[in-house]
Amino acid sequence: MSFSLKNLPERSAKPRAEGITLVLDKGYSVRQVEDLVEVCSGHIDIVKLGWGTSYVTQGLEEKIKVYQNAGIPVYFGGTLFEAYLMRNQLSDYRKLMERYDVTHVEVSNGTILLSDEKKQAIIKELSNDYTVYSEVGSKNPNEIIPPYKWVRTIQQELEAGSEKVICEARESGTVGMFRPNGEIRSGLLEEITDQISPKHLLFEAPKKEQQVWFIRKYGSNVNLGNIQPEEVIPLETLRLGLRGDTLLDFYSLEEGNELDQVIKANGMNDQE
Amino acid sequence: MSFSLKNLPERSAKPRAEGITLVLDKGYSVRQVEDLVEVCSGHIDIVKLGWGTSYVTQGLEEKIKVYQNAGIPVYFGGTLFEAYLMRNQLSDYRKLMERYDVTHVEVSNGTILLSDEKKQAIIKELSNDYTVYSEVGSKNPNEIIPPYKWVRTIQQELEAGSEKVICEARESGTVGMFRPNGEIRSGLLEEITDQISPKHLLFEAPKKEQQVWFIRKYGSNVNLGNIQPEEVIPLETLRLGLRGDTLLDFYSLEEGNELDQVIKANGMNDQE
Amino acid sequence: MSFSLKNLPERSAKPRAEGITLVLDKGYSVRQVEDLVEVCSGHIDIVKLGWGTSYVTQGLEEKIKVYQNAGIPVYFGGTLFEAYLMRNQLSDYRKLMERYDVTHVEVSNGTILLSDEKKQAIIKELSNDYTVYSEVGSKNPNEIIPPYKWVRTIQQELEAGSEKVICEARESGTVGMFRPNGEIRSGLLEEITDQISPKHLLFEAPKKEQQVWFIRKYGSNVNLGNIQPEEVIPLETLRLGLRGDTLLDFYSLEEGNELDQVIKANGMNDQE
Repeated sequence: MSFSLKNLPERSAKPRAEGITLVLDKGYSVRQVEDLVEVCSGHIDIVKLGWGTSYVTQGLEEKIKVYQNAGIPVYFGGTLFEAYLMRNQLSDYRKLMERYDVTHVEVSNGTILLSDEKKQAIIKELSNDYTVYSEVGSKNPNEIIPPYKWVRTIQQELEAGSEKVICEARESGTVGMFRPNGEIRSGLLEEITDQISPKHLLFEAPKKEQQVWFIRKYGSNVNLGNIQPEEVIPLETLRLGLRGDTLLDFYSLEEGNELDQVIKANGMNDQE
Repeated sequence: MSFSLKNLPERSAKPRAEGITLVLDKGYSVRQVEDLVEVCSGHIDIVKLGWGTSYVTQGLEEKIKVYQNAGIPVYFGGTLFEAYLMRNQLSDYRKLMERYDVTHVEVSNGTILLSDEKKQAIIKELSNDYTVYSEVGSKNPNEIIPPYKWVRTIQQELEAGSEKVICEARESGTVGMFRPNGEIRSGLLEEITDQISPKHLLFEAPKKEQQVWFIRKYGSNVNLGNIQPEEVIPLETLRLGLRGDTLLDFYSLEEGNELDQVIKANGMNDQE
Repeated sequence: MSFSLKNLPERSAKPRAEGITLVLDKGYSVRQVEDLVEVCSGHIDIVKLGWGTSYVTQGLEEKIKVYQNAGIPVYFGGTLFEAYLMRNQLSDYRKLMERYDVTHVEVSNGTILLSDEKKQAIIKELSNDYTVYSEVGSKNPNEIIPPYKWVRTIQQELEAGSEKVICEARESGTVGMFRPNGEIRSGLLEEITDQISPKHLLFEAPKKEQQVWFIRKYGSNVNLGNIQPEEVIPLETLRLGLRGDTLLDFYSLEEGNELDQVIKANGMNDQE
């Protein structure tokens, strides 16, 4: 191995139960997927074909196979699930997933109103045949869900059969766990993770500042989602402390290192 | 067909007179164009090689041919037209277009000052040999053109021979129809479209919020421009109501759908 | 030549001592690099593999070779240098550079604290074997370095053996020479370039507005860095006055051009 840095943080290996990077593909071509897989397949655990993009993507079948042949599961975005559900076409949605050998399903109600009871019933039913990721939090920036309700809903959905619960942020990172300006609702996050282990959660964090926040708070192996394909490698460097933002968070000093003092005096570790 | 959603909005088919998506290419390579065409050629009606980018693009001839062979016309950005015009080199510009089999031309005065009379004379002359798109609105954020003047100028340019009139926004979406913060000047738009049918207009709308606004206001088949290549598929989902932002705008409920009530109570339709 | 505009500004040719465009690659695949080189190799002088991205890039060796075979030198980001240095592994870092035939090295202290004396000693030592680019300015937005200190540090590093000194801005363009909102600290820049020729400096300018500012201030052949790969062609048009922002800055009027008056009246030249 030509790279040989000492004392990097320990990173989980594929197939990962923790430290998942979920990529948001909003319309890549076959060759773009081949390129992505070639350059960083080891850092991608699962791919979501964003909202209804798969509906209008030419060459979808071949594209999905490239991911699957690289050992990366693919699933359709939650909004497509909602589009089928609101039309009473859930059985058609199941056929669609079978047609493309899709093994994961996102159950969400980010846009449509769907009662907690009905949502949990759907999770229960689908979890017999699929790995279910359910999503909590509205896409509507004006709909603020109080912390206790996040906690209760997440717990109920895990019990109903969700493999992980996704905490909503959208592609823009401006709703759900975040304020409209992209700032994190840290009190909300603390209340949630006080009661539910982060390993059962997957945080949508499309912006770098958000990724940095989660990695500093929950460690290198936090589960992060809605990562743009071109941000997979930059995110991996954040997890390993190989970017300025986390360089001083993840490493142990060798004994006798003369930089010891100055680094500790730097104070960047205290930015949080 | 593996996708089977009921009650999607009707979308025009190529070659489109309405519902045009105009893509802004600011320097794609041959292979990138091949990928784009492969994955979404059906959703691209015309491509603009942004401003003077074609001047410094290696392999331009082969690249243009990939678009043309896919049935997608290509033209040079209006700023290149202005660069030739201000140097008294309009005849060289015509030779350039012939050299690359370019059939469309954008006549603009976003940066240079060119009187309305002279601009219309050029439109008239060029429309004998080319399909002319003329552009209205300054690239200078400090130059605010009043609504009545937009209307009059657009009408005169259509009469002079413009196929469509482009309403300026730049790549950034912060001038012309938009305020410097990207917010839409909705009063201006209403005054324009009160007197001129949107089918004669092509709105530059590089940002998602702007695209959503136009689609909600003028329907799925509004003409939109300055769309980044990677946003073609996301835009198509907005037009079809397959993204959260427009999911509840475009669909008809099946009779007896039990979600009927809750969706109508959601209120997202009223965001506008 | 099919393009034939008169009176474009004179642009330096490769290999360039001035007018350098330094590209920031944060994880391109082999084929993406091939595409980039094909479409604009003439406008790229050097490539930086951003911070520690090379550490987690699959197929790195082949990728680097594509750049090198196109005559474009590649080097590792300064944060990787810092990651090795803080672990007392500078000799391992040298081996790494030899392993990939890397001829340039960035010496920075954007994140770690490293005294000026020690930094200059390292520059001196490395400049025996490599072309050294040293970087000045903190990545920490709260650490404001006064102008006189920028000047002194830059001068000392040039004397120590730096080929050029890079003025920090990060990928985001919000630190160092820039305020957190991306606005330029113009007084700082004026004080620096009053005493040090811009040809010895390389300004990180990831945002278009920043690029425009430097080009208007220091001319077409200013050295600019942290340019995203997809912004190389757009930047080249700015340098040549082929984009609205600089169209009226770089050209000489032909005698008798009837647009003469109106252009001068436009006032866009005065925006600065």
